[in-house]
Amino acid sequence: MAKKKIVVLGAGFGGLAFTRALQHKDAEITLIDRQNHHLFQPLLYQVATAGLSMPEVSEPVRTIFQKRRDVNVLMAEVESIDVERKRVVLKGIDSVEYDYLVVGMGMVNAYFGHPEWAKHTIGLKSLDEARRIRRQILHAYERAEATKDMEERKRLMTHVVIGGGPTGVEMAGAISELTKRVFKHDFRSIRPEDSRIVLVEAAPRILGAYTEASSQKATEDLKRLGVEVITDAPVKDVRAGIVELDGQIIESESIIWTAGVEANPVLRSIPAEFDRRGRISVEQDTSLPGYPEVFVIGDVANMTDIKGQQVPGVSPAAMQMGKHAAKIIKKELKEFRRIPVKERKPFKYFDKGTMATIGRSKAVAEVGGLKFSGPFAWVLWLAVHLIFLVGFRNKAAVLLQWAYAYIGYRPGARVFDLRNPDPAPKPEEVVQEKV
Amino acid sequence: MAKKKIVVLGAGFGGLAFTRALQHKDAEITLIDRQNHHLFQPLLYQVATAGLSMPEVSEPVRTIFQKRRDVNVLMAEVESIDVERKRVVLKGIDSVEYDYLVVGMGMVNAYFGHPEWAKHTIGLKSLDEARRIRRQILHAYERAEATKDMEERKRLMTHVVIGGGPTGVEMAGAISELTKRVFKHDFRSIRPEDSRIVLVEAAPRILGAYTEASSQKATEDLKRLGVEVITDAPVKDVRAGIVELDGQIIESESIIWTAGVEANPVLRSIPAEFDRRGRISVEQDTSLPGYPEVFVIGDVANMTDIKGQQVPGVSPAAMQMGKHAAKIIKKELKEFRRIPVKERKPFKYFDKGTMATIGRSKAVAEVGGLKFSGPFAWVLWLAVHLIFLVGFRNKAAVLLQWAYAYIGYRPGARVFDLRNPDPAPKPEEVVQEKV
Repeated sequence: MAKKKIVVLGAGFGGLAFTRALQHKDAEITLIDRQNHHLFQPLLYQVATAGLSMPEVSEPVRTIFQKRRDVNVLMAEVESIDVERKRVVLKGIDSVEYDYLVVGMGMVNAYFGHPEWAKHTIGLKSLDEARRIRRQILHAYERAEATKDMEERKRLMTHVVIGGGPTGVEMAGAISELTKRVFKHDFRSIRPEDSRIVLVEAAPRILGAYTEASSQKATEDLKRLGVEVITDAPVKDVRAGIVELDGQIIESESIIWTAGVEANPVLRSIPAEFDRRGRISVEQDTSLPGYPEVFVIGDVANMTDIKGQQVPGVSPAAMQMGKHAAKIIKKELKEFRRIPVKERKPFKYFDKGTMATIGRSKAVAEVGGLKFSGPFAWVLWLAVHLIFLVGFRNKAAVLLQWAYAYIGYRPGARVFDLRNPDPAPKPEEVVQEKV
Repeated sequence: MAKKKIVVLGAGFGGLAFTRALQHKDAEITLIDRQNHHLFQPLLYQVATAGLSMPEVSEPVRTIFQKRRDVNVLMAEVESIDVERKRVVLKGIDSVEYDYLVVGMGMVNAYFGHPEWAKHTIGLKSLDEARRIRRQILHAYERAEATKDMEERKRLMTHVVIGGGPTGVEMAGAISELTKRVFKHDFRSIRPEDSRIVLVEAAPRILGAYTEASSQKATEDLKRLGVEVITDAPVKDVRAGIVELDGQIIESESIIWTAGVEANPVLRSIPAEFDRRGRISVEQDTSLPGYPEVFVIGDVANMTDIKGQQVPGVSPAAMQMGKHAAKIIKKELKEFRRIPVKERKPFKYFDKGTMATIGRSKAVAEVGGLKFSGPFAWVLWLAVHLIFLVGFRNKAAVLLQWAYAYIGYRPGARVFDLRNPDPAPKPEEVVQEKV
C-alpha cells in the first residue's frame, strides 16, 4: 500500500505534539514551518528582557525529528490551502499534496483595524521581535546616558506595554526589574530607578482570564515592582513614540504590543466559519466541517469541547489537540478505513491550570480550583517551564542562566549590535508569522 | 587638584586592559565604544557556525566596569579626533575633552580597493556579521532541501572563505564540520556530506604568519575535513553569488571575507604617519609622535618594539600595550609631571605564541620555539580561550555548550529568524566597525 501523506502546517506546540504522537509504518509526515525552529513562546519575554539568549528558547525543528526517518521537515511559507484538491500551495516551491492535513499555524499580532500601529510598536511572537525589543530597551538607556536633554531622557526611560494578559504582565514585570534594578549600578549620569513602566489594559482589570483575586494580586505585585497599571484604558492612537489614551498621552520609544492576536490570515483560503479573531469552528473531533481529513488544532481552532468548555489558546490545549488528531489518524491507518466524524472520539480538554510570572520571584497560578501566588507559584512556574523545554541542552543552559541571574542579579544576554539596524517591519511582514 | 580626564576609544582587548590597569584617585576615565559590548573576537567564528550564541562571546562594557565608579562608559560613534584641541568629536552628542587619550579602535574589513565586494561578502568582525553568516548557511540548506533544481542545490551547498589567515582557516574548518557532519542526519533530500567548502588564499601558503610546517599541517587537517585549499589564488572579482579566481569561477551564496583588514578610517583625522593598512607609526612608548598625551595601542599601532620585533595585530599584544600605556600615565599622575617620551619606559612585546583551531579536535599552536598540532594543541587552544573569556558566566556557559556539542555533535545555536531579513550592509556602514 502506498503510504498516506500527512502534512502538518506549523511546528508550534500543536504541530510538534501531533508529529511526536503519530508514527506509523503506513504514514509519511511533512512538517512545514516558516521558521527553522520551534519557539518556546512562554519564555520569549525573557529573551526580550535580556535574561536568555535566542537559542535557549528555540530548537531547530530538524534536530527534534532527526531520528524520525518518516518525518520530512520543510521550511516554507504557505500561500494557500486548497482543501478541495487536497494540497497546500507553498511560496516559490512545489505544492505538496496530502491525504491528511493538520493545521496548527498559530496566531499573529492584530491591531484592531489599525495596521499602521504595527510599525510603531513591537509585538512578541518571534525571536526577531524579542531581539528588537531587547535592542530597543538597551539602546534607549545608552542614549539616555549620553544626552543632556532631560525631556529626551525621560522619554527614553519610559516603556509602555499595551495589553494586560499574561504576556503583557510578564513583560512589564521583567522590564521593570531589568531597568530599575539590574541597570542600577551600570550608569553614571542617569538614574535607571526613575524609569517609568506603564502597563495599559482596555478592560477593567488585568489577567481577565484569571480569577479576580489573582488579578488583584498580580496588580499589587506589579505596583511593588514599580509598574504603573492603567486599566479601563483602551488605546486611542499609536504614533511614532507616542501612545494616546483617553485624556492621556505617553511619550515612549519602547511601545510593546501584546494586546491582540488573530489567526494566521492564510487560513482564509479555507472554506470555513471564522470567528471575529479569524479562528476556525471545528467539529467535536477537531476536524474541519465537511473535510474529515483536515484537522485544525491549537489556538486557531474555535472550539467548545464535549464537556462544554471553551478550549483556550494555550500550549497545553494545542498539545492535547495534536495528540487527539494523531490518535484518530492512527486508528484509521490501523483499520484501513475512514471513520465517520460522528463515530470519532470527541476531544476533551484537560485544564492543567494557568500561570504568569511577575518579576524575579513572584507569580500567580491557578490549578484546578486552587490559587497560588508569591514565591511558591514562581517555583512552580519555573519547574513547569523547565519540564516542557524541548531539548536537554536548553534545559541545562536555561537553568544555568537563571541560577546566574538569580544569584548575581545580572541577566546574561545584555548585548546588542547596532551595526545593521533592522528596518521597521512592513505591514505585510507583520501578518506572516508562522509557517 | 582637578582630576585628569582620560578618554579611551575602543573597548577591545587593548582598551579593556588599559582601563583595568589604570585606577588612580586623580584620574577619571571615559571609555567609548560604538557597541555596548566587548567582543571576544577569537571565538566569533563559533557564533557564525552555530556553535555558540551571541551573549557567550560578548559582555556588556558597563557590566565589566560596574564597580569602577571612576569609569564612565559611553556608547557613541567617533566622528573625528582633534589632537590639537585635545578633544574627541562624537556623532550626535557633545564632544569630550581629554588630558590623555588612548586610541584602540581596531581594524575594519578592507577590500583591496574594491569596496563593492563588501555587499557580496560577509566579514567576521561583529556579532551582527556572525549572525548573518549563520543565517546565510542555515537558510541555504533549507532552500537546498526544498528545491529540485540540482544546479541551485550545488550552489547553495558551496561555501567560499576568502583569506587563509587564522580566521579563514578556523571558519573553513568549522563550516565543513557543521555542514558535512552535523547536518548529516537532518535532511532527507540533499546529502550535506557533498557540500563544497573552498578556502582561497592569494599567497603560496595558508597561515603565512606561522612556520611552514604548521602551515603544511593545517592544510592537511583541512583537507581531511573535506575543505579544498586553493593557494596562489588572488581574487579577481566578486559579484553576487560568484567568486572569480584566475581561470576559475566558483558559484556560491556564502562568500565569507577574512582576507584583509585596515585601521578604522576615523584615525585619518589624526596628523600621523600611516602605513599601507592605515596603521599609525608610534614612538617606543606607544605614544603618538609629537603628542605624548596620546597613546595608540593594539592593531592600529604600527610598531617595532625595542627588541626589534614587529608587534603583531593579536589580542595579547593589544593587552600588553594597554597595560604599558596605563603604567606610564600612572607614573605621571604619581609624580605630578609629564615625563618626556625619551625617558619613558619603552614597550617590549612578549610573544605568548599563536594558535588556530581546525575543526572539532585539531589545532596548530606555536609557543616560543615549540610547535604543537593535533588534539593536544586543541586542548591548549580551548584552555587559553576559556581563561581569557571576560566574565564568569560566559566561561561556564561556553564550557557547557562545548561539552554538549562535543559529546552530542549538535552545535546548540542552530536557529535563525527569517522574518525580518537584514539589508546588505551599505558601503559606509562597512567601514564603521568599532567605537
